[in-house]
Amino acid sequence: MKALVYEGPGKKSLQERPVPTIAAPTDAIVKVTRTTICGTDLHILKGDVPTCTPGRILGHEGVGIVEDIGAGVTQFKKGDRVLISCISSCGKCEYCRRGMYSHCTTGGWILGNTIDGTQAEYVRIPHADTSLYPIPDGADEEALVMLSDILPTGFECGVLNGKVQPGRTVAIVGSGPIGLAALLTAQFYSPSEIIMVDLDENRLEVAKRFGATETVKADGEAAKRRIFDVTGGKGVDTAIEAVGVPATFGLCQEIIAPGGIIANVGVHGVKADLHLEKLWSQNISITTRLVDTVSTPMLLKTVQSGKIDPKKLITHRFKLDAILDAYDTFSRAASTQALKVIIEAA
Amino acid sequence: MKALVYEGPGKKSLQERPVPTIAAPTDAIVKVTRTTICGTDLHILKGDVPTCTPGRILGHEGVGIVEDIGAGVTQFKKGDRVLISCISSCGKCEYCRRGMYSHCTTGGWILGNTIDGTQAEYVRIPHADTSLYPIPDGADEEALVMLSDILPTGFECGVLNGKVQPGRTVAIVGSGPIGLAALLTAQFYSPSEIIMVDLDENRLEVAKRFGATETVKADGEAAKRRIFDVTGGKGVDTAIEAVGVPATFGLCQEIIAPGGIIANVGVHGVKADLHLEKLWSQNISITTRLVDTVSTPMLLKTVQSGKIDPKKLITHRFKLDAILDAYDTFSRAASTQALKVIIEAA
Repeated sequence: MKALVYEGPGKKSLQERPVPTIAAPTDAIVKVTRTTICGTDLHILKGDVPTCTPGRILGHEGVGIVEDIGAGVTQFKKGDRVLISCISSCGKCEYCRRGMYSHCTTGGWILGNTIDGTQAEYVRIPHADTSLYPIPDGADEEALVMLSDILPTGFECGVLNGKVQPGRTVAIVGSGPIGLAALLTAQFYSPSEIIMVDLDENRLEVAKRFGATETVKADGEAAKRRIFDVTGGKGVDTAIEAVGVPATFGLCQEIIAPGGIIANVGVHGVKADLHLEKLWSQNISITTRLVDTVSTPMLLKTVQSGKIDPKKLITHRFKLDAILDAYDTFSRAASTQALKVIIEAA
Repeated sequence: MKALVYEGPGKKSLQERPVPTIAAPTDAIVKVTRTTICGTDLHILKGDVPTCTPGRILGHEGVGIVEDIGAGVTQFKKGDRVLISCISSCGKCEYCRRGMYSHCTTGGWILGNTIDGTQAEYVRIPHADTSLYPIPDGADEEALVMLSDILPTGFECGVLNGKVQPGRTVAIVGSGPIGLAALLTAQFYSPSEIIMVDLDENRLEVAKRFGATETVKADGEAAKRRIFDVTGGKGVDTAIEAVGVPATFGLCQEIIAPGGIIANVGVHGVKADLHLEKLWSQNISITTRLVDTVSTPMLLKTVQSGKIDPKKLITHRFKLDAILDAYDTFSRAASTQALKVIIEAA
């Protein structure tokens, strides 16, 4: 089969690889129909993710059709259309039973990281019963690819951790795909303001169309001033960090109101300054989270009922044969205006 | 009247000052019977608290007897025995109505900071109806001095913010008066482990007597190793930072288990490193808080019912005339073994 393989920092290729086979009774083999590329894949390609070693098939998002199941799989059968979660979870360990699937002792984020991933014609899914979701009849598969990672990540790490509620003011720092996923799902809870902050004009235009009440094309002190203007000098109740660098995490500390929550979503490569000399008395919370994907079934219902349309995050489409072009388009997002790219694998 | 006055960094004196008078209809004048010294008073004396200017009478803790009330005061009358909260709150502003008295727009921590405090024979208490608490008949006044600040601070900022619950593992970094107050009140919720960390042998001995399940006389890597040993390699569910320096806040980041909470109680003078490059995926929370004293009535009941005995935090007693000796004893705690010192003002 064809597969996109990581070959070490800066190197990847489309290779011919053997179709995976059942390795444990709880495995399923899924024929991938559609997958996508995540910002995290670009992190891997920079060499930032040491757990992902050369030779690995990348990708942790996608939908497909069950091709084979192990003897222990009871919830799926050959031919079932399935959504693949970016988080594999056994459903049995201490963390899974607390709903912290991200820290499953034999799972977590392993797909396209420590085991082969979804940017291929077929993928082996461990703990299939609790790591796949059935696709309802009539559902739009492309939209559901957004439910593998990006939508639950924006929702759980940003909106739920940030306790977005009716009447609260929210700033989302970073208007990339993850920030926009937080923007879409924050609206479930009717906050009074959702201020999107970015330096990219196009992404802020998209944010406006997606429901942002204000957009701020600035960073640092200028961004802070605008946000204080919008919030009557108070700062925001919820600041969602959706970039992953010290400067944007610093801005969140500057704009958070007393009693507020900074919900970190960004993947950070280096430490950041925490201004405890100012924040110790501000009654704030800071949360971090690797997405658990506990909200996937709920999000599926919101998509099916038309409450949100994640398909509008998709800007480009490619065949698996052209996945190197897809990477090129996705990694030059500022000029290509790419948000999410769909890869058709079958 | 006699009063302990801050005269600028490193300087204080016991002075003769006029007895305060009612300045607003919501004021009460309280004749102070007992007060104490807080670590924060030492911070002020170092010059670390710029809002507190020379000429200020220090102190934000104490009990006393109502001497006079303004026309608008309805809950107290002359002669009532009262507990003075370290936080003054109007009860009417947006923050007060959310229970965030610490951020009251005309109150908060002002006593012995931006207005004259309790280390004197008399003190003016603004917003008296919502900043004083009646002392029940037969209550031990000395014990109740611990309810002005230290007990609600350890409880609200440490135990409540840290979500201490049955079965959870807790580490309290810093076994000073605030850490010990957190230790006493953490036991309301029956955690499975309370590990006290400090470098002072005497304070750890006290912690053992007060109910610590483990004590760790170490810092840095050695402290981390011991805590991982005690918790079966997992780290703790709740880490309470009760010192206020970057190193102890750093230790809390090292020992927190996935899904855990770091509850900051310490007053920090400088920024700290936040290791987001490790913590972004660990599903942790960090909380900060200036005590709101919302728990004061509840804590009063726990003292009255004998559930906790805060009097055991008291190690020394002085008359107001000898308050300079009291400061000396309190500031040399390592050699004097002082925890809380009581000052008898009347």
